[in-house]
Amino acid sequence: MISDSPLVLAATRQPVPHTPVWFMRQAGRSLPEYRALREGTAMLEACRTPDLVTEITLQPVRRHKADAAIFFSDIVVPLAAVGVDLDIVPGTGPVVPAPFRTRADLDRLPDLTADAIPDITESVRRLVGELGPTPLIGFAGAPFTLASYLVEGGPSKTHEQTKALMHGDPQLWNDLCERLAQISGAFLRVQVEAGAGAVQLFDSWVGALSRADYTAYVQKHSATALAAVADLGVPRIHFGVGTGELFELMGAAGAEVVGVDYRVSLTDAVARLGDGYAVQGNLDPALLGAPWDVLEARVRAIVDEGRDAPGHIFNLGHGVPPHADPDVLTRIVEVVHEHSAR
Amino acid sequence: MISDSPLVLAATRQPVPHTPVWFMRQAGRSLPEYRALREGTAMLEACRTPDLVTEITLQPVRRHKADAAIFFSDIVVPLAAVGVDLDIVPGTGPVVPAPFRTRADLDRLPDLTADAIPDITESVRRLVGELGPTPLIGFAGAPFTLASYLVEGGPSKTHEQTKALMHGDPQLWNDLCERLAQISGAFLRVQVEAGAGAVQLFDSWVGALSRADYTAYVQKHSATALAAVADLGVPRIHFGVGTGELFELMGAAGAEVVGVDYRVSLTDAVARLGDGYAVQGNLDPALLGAPWDVLEARVRAIVDEGRDAPGHIFNLGHGVPPHADPDVLTRIVEVVHEHSAR
Repeated sequence: MISDSPLVLAATRQPVPHTPVWFMRQAGRSLPEYRALREGTAMLEACRTPDLVTEITLQPVRRHKADAAIFFSDIVVPLAAVGVDLDIVPGTGPVVPAPFRTRADLDRLPDLTADAIPDITESVRRLVGELGPTPLIGFAGAPFTLASYLVEGGPSKTHEQTKALMHGDPQLWNDLCERLAQISGAFLRVQVEAGAGAVQLFDSWVGALSRADYTAYVQKHSATALAAVADLGVPRIHFGVGTGELFELMGAAGAEVVGVDYRVSLTDAVARLGDGYAVQGNLDPALLGAPWDVLEARVRAIVDEGRDAPGHIFNLGHGVPPHADPDVLTRIVEVVHEHSAR
Repeated sequence: MISDSPLVLAATRQPVPHTPVWFMRQAGRSLPEYRALREGTAMLEACRTPDLVTEITLQPVRRHKADAAIFFSDIVVPLAAVGVDLDIVPGTGPVVPAPFRTRADLDRLPDLTADAIPDITESVRRLVGELGPTPLIGFAGAPFTLASYLVEGGPSKTHEQTKALMHGDPQLWNDLCERLAQISGAFLRVQVEAGAGAVQLFDSWVGALSRADYTAYVQKHSATALAAVADLGVPRIHFGVGTGELFELMGAAGAEVVGVDYRVSLTDAVARLGDGYAVQGNLDPALLGAPWDVLEARVRAIVDEGRDAPGHIFNLGHGVPPHADPDVLTRIVEVVHEHSAR
């Protein structure tokens, strides 16, 4: 049963046989079998092709014996599904040729309904069948991060135009984020209804906001996205990079698990969050390139810290770098399991 | 007297007539007079030409009536001065064609001595003469940030190779950072001996480190750089981006003032630092694009928070964006002065 899996037990703060472990971007470029399979297929097309999504999602679970699969997708997939013109440019990321600028642009963001993404339902169903007792984590981007891509027209270090819209026209900002929260929530709901055993909402760039801005302009929209699956009883993980100042606000948005990047220790994160949340993290992905003895010591230390948390899912503090050695990831899974076995 | 200037008074936690204000990167691309002057001259060459350095450094003080000048330079200038082959590529940043890899590369980092940078001494002397009672802030990059450019060969989002060296060969890492601390400290000392009234050590990327790594591998080297001017009696400002987890460690490295980016409020920063430090910050530069009433309210709120700090220097949380409207900066200076006048 999925509900007895270490991932779901840890996420719901119940005793676990061992600390569950998966890696953000475990399905992706670090795996030679992924690179071979993706050859000749554009990212957005791959994300909409059940044969590819299924196989790519399964690859790291087979190889690393991870405790969960993460649905292979991209945060802009649901935007493309509602008709937004965009592309994922290799080496750059999502690019939106006509960025969001005015109220009229809201018309380009109709509601997302399940019938627009039958392939997602099919991919999830197939995966759930293949995965058996291993949970599939559903995937969506959060409204702020989606808005940043739409407003900036692509990846941004500073999110200047996004913040200018937020402060310059708060009503339009709110209307935009309401649309995005619906889209994001619907994308999660489709995955859970098809069998995903947990979800993760990625607010990758939200660490670029002050607490005041997060509270005033972002939190409620992420809450709307997370609320879309609240009645389905699956644990919800809420993650962003560099969010040490926002942990409890991100938890309060409606998550059972808060992602912690490596800048804050799990112990400090738990202290900031209080007892109501499990934590996920928090190995610095840059350490994957460190000598094994250094890395192993760090992995064990994180497992030890996690033991004192209400619940702990081992993960990196951010995605697997493309050139990471996949054998190192496999060894980390082994160490986490071995060192945490109760 | 420089020691009676609002900047030095605030930095040393003494009463001020008004909150002093300057902007990181105030001397630079946001000013049309800068763009005109720089035309046809490469960045590294400009940084070594006293006529240009003097004029560029003075431009924003004249225009904005800022309370301090920041010495126009680049963090890689002292590396170039000791003979490291590097270039500053427009749109990219510093690029080191032969990155630092092995112990033999230490030979490319001899000590920096004042006689290698007579132009810096000359520029500072001229500036101090021109500036009169307005302090000139001396400028240097901190060892970690310099090391990252050398090890990665250019700007990096993840600092993976830097961290791999740090953890993989801590002895070589320490030896590298000792060299860089000497170079950085000597660069500051030359400026202070020529008349700079304060210094700022820029550890721009140090927010990419965990507390544990900062403590073990970085803090002592920044302390060495800051100690190089300890006997000269000028206030030392220590700044990095996203360093909310590191404030008190950066203060303890030997600073009188700790830079705060916009992710943490000044009130929280003071609480983390304790009473022994002044703070500098913390307007989100992305807000320069917000409507004036929104921006003005935020500026006033920051001035109000700063009033309760042991000392406060108003600044942005990071550098002025290249396309910022310089008139907005001028108005901010006016508001800070007006709203803080005692």
